[in-house]
Amino acid sequence: MKIMKRSDLSSLRRSVDQGTEEQRRSVQRIIQEVKENGDQSVKTYTEQFDGADIVNWRVTQDEFDEAYMSIDGGFVEILEEAAANIRSFHEKQRTTSWFETSEDGTILGQKVTPIAAVGVYVPGGTAAYPSSVFMNVIPAQVAGVKRIVIVTPPGKDGKVPAGVLVAAQLLGVDHVYKAGGAQAIAALAYGTETIAPVDKITGPGNVYVALAKREVFGDVDIDMIAGPSEIAVLADHTAKAEEVAADLLSQAEHDARSSSVLVTTDESLAEGVRTAVYEQLRSLPRYNIAKASIDEYGAIIVCDTKPEALDTINEMAAEHLEIVTENPFQDMAQVNHAGAIFLGPYSSEPVGDYFAGPNHVLPTSGTARFSSPLTVDDFVKKSSIISYSEQALQKNADKIAQFSRLEGLEAHARAIESRKERWK
Amino acid sequence: MKIMKRSDLSSLRRSVDQGTEEQRRSVQRIIQEVKENGDQSVKTYTEQFDGADIVNWRVTQDEFDEAYMSIDGGFVEILEEAAANIRSFHEKQRTTSWFETSEDGTILGQKVTPIAAVGVYVPGGTAAYPSSVFMNVIPAQVAGVKRIVIVTPPGKDGKVPAGVLVAAQLLGVDHVYKAGGAQAIAALAYGTETIAPVDKITGPGNVYVALAKREVFGDVDIDMIAGPSEIAVLADHTAKAEEVAADLLSQAEHDARSSSVLVTTDESLAEGVRTAVYEQLRSLPRYNIAKASIDEYGAIIVCDTKPEALDTINEMAAEHLEIVTENPFQDMAQVNHAGAIFLGPYSSEPVGDYFAGPNHVLPTSGTARFSSPLTVDDFVKKSSIISYSEQALQKNADKIAQFSRLEGLEAHARAIESRKERWK
Repeated sequence: MKIMKRSDLSSLRRSVDQGTEEQRRSVQRIIQEVKENGDQSVKTYTEQFDGADIVNWRVTQDEFDEAYMSIDGGFVEILEEAAANIRSFHEKQRTTSWFETSEDGTILGQKVTPIAAVGVYVPGGTAAYPSSVFMNVIPAQVAGVKRIVIVTPPGKDGKVPAGVLVAAQLLGVDHVYKAGGAQAIAALAYGTETIAPVDKITGPGNVYVALAKREVFGDVDIDMIAGPSEIAVLADHTAKAEEVAADLLSQAEHDARSSSVLVTTDESLAEGVRTAVYEQLRSLPRYNIAKASIDEYGAIIVCDTKPEALDTINEMAAEHLEIVTENPFQDMAQVNHAGAIFLGPYSSEPVGDYFAGPNHVLPTSGTARFSSPLTVDDFVKKSSIISYSEQALQKNADKIAQFSRLEGLEAHARAIESRKERWK
Repeated sequence: MKIMKRSDLSSLRRSVDQGTEEQRRSVQRIIQEVKENGDQSVKTYTEQFDGADIVNWRVTQDEFDEAYMSIDGGFVEILEEAAANIRSFHEKQRTTSWFETSEDGTILGQKVTPIAAVGVYVPGGTAAYPSSVFMNVIPAQVAGVKRIVIVTPPGKDGKVPAGVLVAAQLLGVDHVYKAGGAQAIAALAYGTETIAPVDKITGPGNVYVALAKREVFGDVDIDMIAGPSEIAVLADHTAKAEEVAADLLSQAEHDARSSSVLVTTDESLAEGVRTAVYEQLRSLPRYNIAKASIDEYGAIIVCDTKPEALDTINEMAAEHLEIVTENPFQDMAQVNHAGAIFLGPYSSEPVGDYFAGPNHVLPTSGTARFSSPLTVDDFVKKSSIISYSEQALQKNADKIAQFSRLEGLEAHARAIESRKERWK
């Protein structure tokens, strides 16, 4: 874990995996084949890539029931509580249609409508997280999306992890399909005999999924392409080194390319955290991943002043930011870029991963400069509403026509003037 | 102008120009060179593509003054009124930071911050519209964006159209740079000696601009890539054929690939509009463009019933939709997808292009299924706020730890449990 200066920050930046030219071509070919041959292609690729021979690729009620029975009842309760917290938070994000009226009878406004159909990609294997189901499906449900389908790659046994199925069922999503990779993205975007096409695709995936999402973007909408996870901790003498270290490691265990950075003005905290990180690291089950991440992308940046520390934090625009200082709210007010901000000693980052309520789909790789967490807003779209009154048009027709002509658009001017007949 | 059935709709669909492989490579090369050589590359390409030898590529106050003097005072007043209307509408779109509190002291919320720096691309030549300046800059200003710069290609004489400069000056934007194409997009995204990099780039442009925006996307944010303009008119016997025809032509004059479609249940209106379109077409200055557009992408769809007509409208998801029927508001309530909806006989589409207030940057090519007009929201981003109380963590620590372990993330569980020391 390097102790570095603010000016070395750029050495930590990792870009999103863009894939190789060969991977891109392979993804394009798969998409084309699914477009042409539908279900049959999806099945062929599922056999080829997942080693599973799937006859019926929609999950049946029996499979849902089996998953439910296999899961500990106590855990189902925790899932239910987490889902309720997530729903409650996202309900506050709901936006409504609005309009304003003028005395002349003109009405201007904005109509908000849900996207009609959304597909959620849930990764397979060890990264098959029930929390991914919650974080993508719940905001879509709160937005009012009518049709939500989940795709997720099956294991060799043709099964989908029980946690994912239970999470889906708790939310009432009964369209879950066993397919992954570019073939699943293509099926969502263009439809097959079994799946009707959706309008938007969200959810994380490997490089093939990311490339496929980029490829279908425009025909459907997609969420952001996520890079490796990141945490920045802004801490002072009030922070406990063991807690900060544990939080840094919780990001490091995600991925060897995850980045965990402490920014502090307190040199003794810096030393304490470094010692604690290596001490705690030793006993982690995901030791190899966490160690690689800490060695390569872990850092402690010691700043001379609080303003310098805050500038550093803003430069990083981290996905997760913890503020463990004397006045965390005051410091938060000065943070301009971060995906999620965790305040005070009890807001350990994993609190937000599953349970508190805010979304865990967050902008990575510094994109918090211009991107936001996944919100209900990502599942609605707006239409402008313009109802001009006769009086308003009569008053403004000449101005609008003149503006049109100055932009060289005569037919625009004439469209306005065609109404003049009415008040002649 | 074809009279067609709803089932023929797909024949009207045009996709966004993706450019050729050669164009893509050329754009990649230009971006790379601007990244490496900054101002010098921008100047070289401006000479090569725009034929202008630019010494100082930032517009000077003298040039602003000259532009202002060259414009009719009456037009300046119209511009000011339009800007005020646009600002007033967009101010209603402002979103605020919010939080909720729990009795145990937990605070959850969402902080809204403006994007720090935005670059607006304004096309050159005959498409150099003051309204483009307004529609991109005003929402950014309302969002609170601190640094806004405009780039626009100069003419051979090294000058920028007066209307664009006056519009910029009316809004207080004094950073206007003479550069266009991929070189301007690269300068905005990566910065040069003269321009500091921005975080988001908006505004329309030709295929090179669109390709360059796609290329830099991820390093900065971009707005949507717009396809050719579209209008759909839903009209019944209450509509006047001449007015509908004039409105259809106002879209057709934009571009030979623009699409203008009437959807109606009234056969005599259909006939009347067709006749009026060809009659009005003859005297248009942009006859060739409008004629090509009407012939190729103009259509009249006669439906048997109102529900069928509304289904057709929803399938089209048009950029502009006019509803000229007996009960336009009731019909609007049943429209799920459209960029902007113009209600009643006085809401001719050009009313919205410049003057009424809503944005004219709208989703094209059916993307209104999942995209929105440009709004103030496009110039802010959100950060989740999580301040967990001691009491909340104490109550939920075991659940969160259990959830973490079920997802296979031990370090997450330990981060939570590291706080247990505090209440031992």
